[in-house]
Amino acid sequence: MSVSIFDSFLTTPDMIAVFDDASVVQAMFRFEAALARAQAAEGIIPEAAARAIASVCNAQLYDIPAMVHASRRAGSLAIPLVKELTKTVALFNQESANYVHWGSTSQDVIDTGMVLVTRQALSLIDDGLQTLTESLLNLAEQHLATPILARTLMQPAQVTSFGFKLVGWAAPLVRARVQLRETAQRALQLQLGGAVGTLAVMAKKGPAVARRVADDLGLAEADAAWHTQRDEWVRLGLEVAVMVGSLGKIATDLSLLAQGEIAELAEPSGNGRGGSSAMPHKRNPVSSMIALAAAARTPQRAAALLAGMGQEHERGLGNWQAELAEWPGMFLSAHGALTALAEAMAGLHVDTVRMRRNIDALQGLVFAEAVSIYLAAAIGRPQAHGLMEQLTQLAVANGKDLAAVITDHVKTAVKTDTRLRDKIDLSVLQTLFDPVAATGPAETLARQQLQTLRTTVAALQALTALT
Amino acid sequence: MSVSIFDSFLTTPDMIAVFDDASVVQAMFRFEAALARAQAAEGIIPEAAARAIASVCNAQLYDIPAMVHASRRAGSLAIPLVKELTKTVALFNQESANYVHWGSTSQDVIDTGMVLVTRQALSLIDDGLQTLTESLLNLAEQHLATPILARTLMQPAQVTSFGFKLVGWAAPLVRARVQLRETAQRALQLQLGGAVGTLAVMAKKGPAVARRVADDLGLAEADAAWHTQRDEWVRLGLEVAVMVGSLGKIATDLSLLAQGEIAELAEPSGNGRGGSSAMPHKRNPVSSMIALAAAARTPQRAAALLAGMGQEHERGLGNWQAELAEWPGMFLSAHGALTALAEAMAGLHVDTVRMRRNIDALQGLVFAEAVSIYLAAAIGRPQAHGLMEQLTQLAVANGKDLAAVITDHVKTAVKTDTRLRDKIDLSVLQTLFDPVAATGPAETLARQQLQTLRTTVAALQALTALT
Amino acid sequence: MSVSIFDSFLTTPDMIAVFDDASVVQAMFRFEAALARAQAAEGIIPEAAARAIASVCNAQLYDIPAMVHASRRAGSLAIPLVKELTKTVALFNQESANYVHWGSTSQDVIDTGMVLVTRQALSLIDDGLQTLTESLLNLAEQHLATPILARTLMQPAQVTSFGFKLVGWAAPLVRARVQLRETAQRALQLQLGGAVGTLAVMAKKGPAVARRVADDLGLAEADAAWHTQRDEWVRLGLEVAVMVGSLGKIATDLSLLAQGEIAELAEPSGNGRGGSSAMPHKRNPVSSMIALAAAARTPQRAAALLAGMGQEHERGLGNWQAELAEWPGMFLSAHGALTALAEAMAGLHVDTVRMRRNIDALQGLVFAEAVSIYLAAAIGRPQAHGLMEQLTQLAVANGKDLAAVITDHVKTAVKTDTRLRDKIDLSVLQTLFDPVAATGPAETLARQQLQTLRTTVAALQALTALT
Amino acid sequence: MSVSIFDSFLTTPDMIAVFDDASVVQAMFRFEAALARAQAAEGIIPEAAARAIASVCNAQLYDIPAMVHASRRAGSLAIPLVKELTKTVALFNQESANYVHWGSTSQDVIDTGMVLVTRQALSLIDDGLQTLTESLLNLAEQHLATPILARTLMQPAQVTSFGFKLVGWAAPLVRARVQLRETAQRALQLQLGGAVGTLAVMAKKGPAVARRVADDLGLAEADAAWHTQRDEWVRLGLEVAVMVGSLGKIATDLSLLAQGEIAELAEPSGNGRGGSSAMPHKRNPVSSMIALAAAARTPQRAAALLAGMGQEHERGLGNWQAELAEWPGMFLSAHGALTALAEAMAGLHVDTVRMRRNIDALQGLVFAEAVSIYLAAAIGRPQAHGLMEQLTQLAVANGKDLAAVITDHVKTAVKTDTRLRDKIDLSVLQTLFDPVAATGPAETLARQQLQTLRTTVAALQALTALT
Repeated sequence: MSVSIFDSFLTTPDMIAVFDDASVVQAMFRFEAALARAQAAEGIIPEAAARAIASVCNAQLYDIPAMVHASRRAGSLAIPLVKELTKTVALFNQESANYVHWGSTSQDVIDTGMVLVTRQALSLIDDGLQTLTESLLNLAEQHLATPILARTLMQPAQVTSFGFKLVGWAAPLVRARVQLRETAQRALQLQLGGAVGTLAVMAKKGPAVARRVADDLGLAEADAAWHTQRDEWVRLGLEVAVMVGSLGKIATDLSLLAQGEIAELAEPSGNGRGGSSAMPHKRNPVSSMIALAAAARTPQRAAALLAGMGQEHERGLGNWQAELAEWPGMFLSAHGALTALAEAMAGLHVDTVRMRRNIDALQGLVFAEAVSIYLAAAIGRPQAHGLMEQLTQLAVANGKDLAAVITDHVKTAVKTDTRLRDKIDLSVLQTLFDPVAATGPAETLARQQLQTLRTTVAALQALTALT
Repeated sequence: MSVSIFDSFLTTPDMIAVFDDASVVQAMFRFEAALARAQAAEGIIPEAAARAIASVCNAQLYDIPAMVHASRRAGSLAIPLVKELTKTVALFNQESANYVHWGSTSQDVIDTGMVLVTRQALSLIDDGLQTLTESLLNLAEQHLATPILARTLMQPAQVTSFGFKLVGWAAPLVRARVQLRETAQRALQLQLGGAVGTLAVMAKKGPAVARRVADDLGLAEADAAWHTQRDEWVRLGLEVAVMVGSLGKIATDLSLLAQGEIAELAEPSGNGRGGSSAMPHKRNPVSSMIALAAAARTPQRAAALLAGMGQEHERGLGNWQAELAEWPGMFLSAHGALTALAEAMAGLHVDTVRMRRNIDALQGLVFAEAVSIYLAAAIGRPQAHGLMEQLTQLAVANGKDLAAVITDHVKTAVKTDTRLRDKIDLSVLQTLFDPVAATGPAETLARQQLQTLRTTVAALQALTALT
Repeated sequence: MSVSIFDSFLTTPDMIAVFDDASVVQAMFRFEAALARAQAAEGIIPEAAARAIASVCNAQLYDIPAMVHASRRAGSLAIPLVKELTKTVALFNQESANYVHWGSTSQDVIDTGMVLVTRQALSLIDDGLQTLTESLLNLAEQHLATPILARTLMQPAQVTSFGFKLVGWAAPLVRARVQLRETAQRALQLQLGGAVGTLAVMAKKGPAVARRVADDLGLAEADAAWHTQRDEWVRLGLEVAVMVGSLGKIATDLSLLAQGEIAELAEPSGNGRGGSSAMPHKRNPVSSMIALAAAARTPQRAAALLAGMGQEHERGLGNWQAELAEWPGMFLSAHGALTALAEAMAGLHVDTVRMRRNIDALQGLVFAEAVSIYLAAAIGRPQAHGLMEQLTQLAVANGKDLAAVITDHVKTAVKTDTRLRDKIDLSVLQTLFDPVAATGPAETLARQQLQTLRTTVAALQALTALT
Repeated sequence: MSVSIFDSFLTTPDMIAVFDDASVVQAMFRFEAALARAQAAEGIIPEAAARAIASVCNAQLYDIPAMVHASRRAGSLAIPLVKELTKTVALFNQESANYVHWGSTSQDVIDTGMVLVTRQALSLIDDGLQTLTESLLNLAEQHLATPILARTLMQPAQVTSFGFKLVGWAAPLVRARVQLRETAQRALQLQLGGAVGTLAVMAKKGPAVARRVADDLGLAEADAAWHTQRDEWVRLGLEVAVMVGSLGKIATDLSLLAQGEIAELAEPSGNGRGGSSAMPHKRNPVSSMIALAAAARTPQRAAALLAGMGQEHERGLGNWQAELAEWPGMFLSAHGALTALAEAMAGLHVDTVRMRRNIDALQGLVFAEAVSIYLAAAIGRPQAHGLMEQLTQLAVANGKDLAAVITDHVKTAVKTDTRLRDKIDLSVLQTLFDPVAATGPAETLARQQLQTLRTTVAALQALTALT
């Protein structure tokens, strides 16, 4: 497979290779070879036939475009593939050709083929998650105490730590990795049911054959053929979609922080990256773009998988075919997004000076909640809230710093209301406007969560090393 | 472009060719050539430069895979394309190379390129609609008086005419063709705005250049650059989606009528069409399958187009790119479905004997409404409804024909209630169970609608002949 | 109907009232009354029956919650409604009760009821579009020459006019209004087909009855019953979705421009609007929020309408019911978004000083393309592009204004290269950095388009006045 | 909440009650009470204040419609709720009013409220799954050896056991139940982060407060506030969507098997269930209808949840609000579908005679694969396949039973080819046409899987009994 010209730059060559025509066809041949071997081991077909079949289960021997062409009339890629395989075996051994695809059905070989290539796709994604997570956690470690504006409903709200923000980006990716592995354990299962899921042709030996084929291919054995029960498979697709959603969240934040007027972060540039055909000064956030495109498209693919679940009786008409065709796009987008963000994070420009400048530019308004709470303890919450509303408006109207406006107000108030003198400490009030101090609670939480995430990641990596 | 291996058999080679890499790149070159010519005509660039540029605007001169590869770093296919074009012009004429892509932006050339290939795509679809509609209307003409079960909520309901059903399938396709043409007139428009949509580089000559480029390419001139105002473009995509919805409705009915237990229709077979790898006796309804797959996938693509509309400021980040990548799939599915159904209808097996047998097998129950209404006139509607409920249950329970059950009941009733004698005419009652007579109202309506559709189709074809 | 508690604030009381249980039931009764009158006029039922039926076709007479409850068992709201109507007529006139709902089917009354309430919904939307468009065009008129940053791919790009931006927001809404009216003309059509769409019970008088009912209700007459051919109806829903897409585009831009760090626009505040429960200084952009929520949800509803099109045979199972349930949400969201943005635009704070300040803060980089083009004429485009890349980097690195950096460079260059002296005019170079001058091309285009839009709006309003 | 009139009959009163306005508001009050108690225990607010607050955290004390109305201006339901709660506390104790909602934010109370009502919703779904699964497994037990046609691509394929089909329907529901419970354990977590997720106001005591609130409400404690990291929450919604997909698969099969022409299954009828307003004899499959409608709508809601994940910075604008509004619909549809199918299965009419008749009507063609394989062993697979193709065509063309056609052919062939005599045993050939024998492999597999499912269900029920 190559993909649509405007798909190409939204994914990676590695993932394109996984779902390439030759790769899928080879995976289908692996199934046929494993099936023959298993059936020989169970005495269903002759050993010689199994050897003959397995020896030509090699995609390079076949004219794949011709197979694809023939699949149009046949309504299934498996039909020309089995036909060509049978012909090829017969060239060497007429007798053995009788045992090709024995007791199996189109969907067995296609579904299992897709499972095998999907396992490769998941491995790429697992690696990508590791790389991106590692970058994020390292950045977080560096920026645990870096003050940055927290923003809610697209408005500056308070001050937080950039490390806290980064840990917040990383955590769902670690969860995604855990969940993807767990879901994959169930979903990467052999499909083998024969024409209507009952393995009728192999009769009593069916389950034993299935066990052998599953072992041979390193797949889980299914409780039953899942020709029209797609729940586990769809769950796996949805896990990918959830991960892309979390990547989209990062890209959203990154693109907002990289706006020229905010400029706290910038994607790496240079070497033609993100240039503009019309404006030489521009550096477009290409990684964010790719991840945002993935996030925009993936929910629809998830819907397509779910919408295809009502498959009729023992094998569906149209819905299974739709699912097959939608499936690769999910992974192509996901890996494009993952790789793009990994690249962005590996070379991220972090402008801590600008972060501080953006806080300062807001005249201390982002400390209003902290002040409000301090005052609430003194004069009651509704009064404090009302007073702060008035003073912040004053600060905005006069372009003054809130710290100054409040200090002025409190000094005057204290004169006329002596009881306030004991309750309000001006030096404490001043510290409430210190961005670094304000970052404290975020830093503490981030430090803890960082530790937890490191532990989980280490455990995941240890498991990877084992396999 | 070739597409995912499991996409291939759901579309057509013709439509793949339209959205092929080379085709899209050539369309982009057509834009660059037309732009240069227009700018020369307006005196913005030298005539010689325009000639030099236009002479190398030929996709065959370029290494397209290399361009696609470079688009990944650049974040846009236009950037390497313009770069290569500039280099190529410079080989012949250094001076002219300065005028390549003058005052234009990436999105101008990409959007216009997509408009050009989409015009070809729409032409294929228009032809496909003509072929399919023609088949349906011809079949309808033959079967205006053929009785067939009408079915509601997946249950046999009454008797209708098969021609009526066919006309019902055809009408939305004729409407789709009209609407597609109308929407295309607005949506197939030049994109030319320069960096931020203001044509600033060309200053006062901008509109004149736009007019010339639009004329050159045979496109509508836009009221304004539509870089981030995608409404007309999305409307066009949605029209395709509506058409696919109507094709899906036909495929739904066709697949239901082709079920072995109903068997009133069958898709053409033979020559490897719809064979089964496991079951030699099976003929799978491959055309329905393709159309149903398209109908399952297309709503999600429509959602993707709509979801991409919130494009930021003067040019979007991620959403435009997502739209570009989703667009071809819409047309690939649509043409696959259209062509498959056209093939099915061209060789449709219509089993009128089985249609009649299926009516007969329902023991006259499908005539119950007509009888109920006849009785209602005699004994009141609630009574008639209640009586019919009782008698139909009796018919079902005893496996008897409703006609017989009712006749028996009426004969008895008439004896004891002489007033009924004048109101109920047993011979009229009998005719209510005649399938051909029951087809009358449907036939009349179908005949009229067929006439109207023929007229519209003729007008559409006349317009086609003109252009 | 009232809606989910978290739906309530995303829509309007007016639109809730349109799709309220009582409103829908009343619309269904209007159908029953009109049907009875038409059948009496055609001599199918007695005049007295029509009068009796029409006189009780009043939702206030009925226990609507009980009907809704009964619809669960029946599988359709029409069944209890017809039953209760029949009972009520019978209270006054036993004989007339026989003629209730004569020759009609559940879907006739429900679809026509939905058409009637949808007409009201569209009228609210048409009004909303007028209000919002008016505000946008008035603002545009005021700001034709106001410089504002144009931004592409979320980065400052060049300078445009704010009026140009506003006209760009308004144009798709004017188009939406035109298209909604046109689509509605076709889609607001009577549904009347009887059990299987053939009007069999009314035989030859069917079409005449349909004509009368359509006239009575002010609806278009359909070419045929559209029980399972939903194309025109879905097109109408999709037009609403396109409009919401265009509203989402406005809200995207508005929310970006209202960010604290950009602050060029602000939604109206005061009177509890957009307050924060935790931060007294915050003003949340509530209108943008509502419109963005609508834009996020609507593509999915559009997909649901399209996905429901494959309705089986003469009446669908599940898909029609899904469409009915999805339909109101489309309009509820749309009107919420429209009204919210109209409110925002009516009280929009426009900070032209900040717009200018944001331009200035970018050190003249946004004028780079203009300068590049000026230089290209002198030294060739690739050289100019390369030089500008170098000088902009210099400007960024040293925090200097690009104008100064370029002037310095040119002064030096001119000394060593006398041929440049004739080609580069330093005073012209300086004017390229004037924001107001840079706004010129945008202003010209905006002025023209504004005029066109005003004319279209006036024509639309004139048509409204007529009806 | 009540819902749209055409939503009502697609859900259940129980689930409507869960997401009712009063229920959601009460859940929000539970959060406020628990927060106050926890903060008192940690010494952040006075004990008396906590008591005062908790004592009025009762939805019945408040004018909920007024709150909903006020939420429109405020942009959040939490703002009027906190305001009214504060006012109410102040009626009794002015001082305590200061401590309402201390250190918390709108999204804390709304998200936690939704978590609490969602827990109730999941409990209803768990019960529903138990009921439906139980029915299916009991039916399966009865029908392990009942022959029924297996159908692939909407065509009769072979013979299977009805029990096998039923076990296939049940298994994904058991998996759904397991997965829903597991996902819920993670997703049903407290939301508590304060304005920007850092619990800044409570400083070091934040985590301890969170632990107490979580315990009080019986919720999991989150690793961090999940204001804009929705992955776990979305996963839960997607699990519901997968379950609905599996319900839709059952409904698809059921509605196909209930078609009048197949009639192997029928939904329970009587008492107004599934009646037709026009046709007294009809019994509409209302349960299938409800489940199919849910299956058509749910993928779009899943897409909406995923599409909403890109929430900006520390709290999103529009996307969170969209998610909140979409969430209940997911559960309303799901419970409607579950309950409807449970009702259908509890009273399912199974017509085993008709199942057998439908097999017989296919002239033995569905045994072709078995025969083909038998013959393949004798004469080679390609030859067997070719021969079978020819003989099945002969059987179809002449309307003869395949068994007879084959027997004739073999008898003749054996005469001329003596080697065949040893390889083909006519009596074995005959047994291949016995439906009960053909059901064997399916029965064996079904029996095993039934046992496994029973064990899992028992374990799930045991866990339920514990909690």
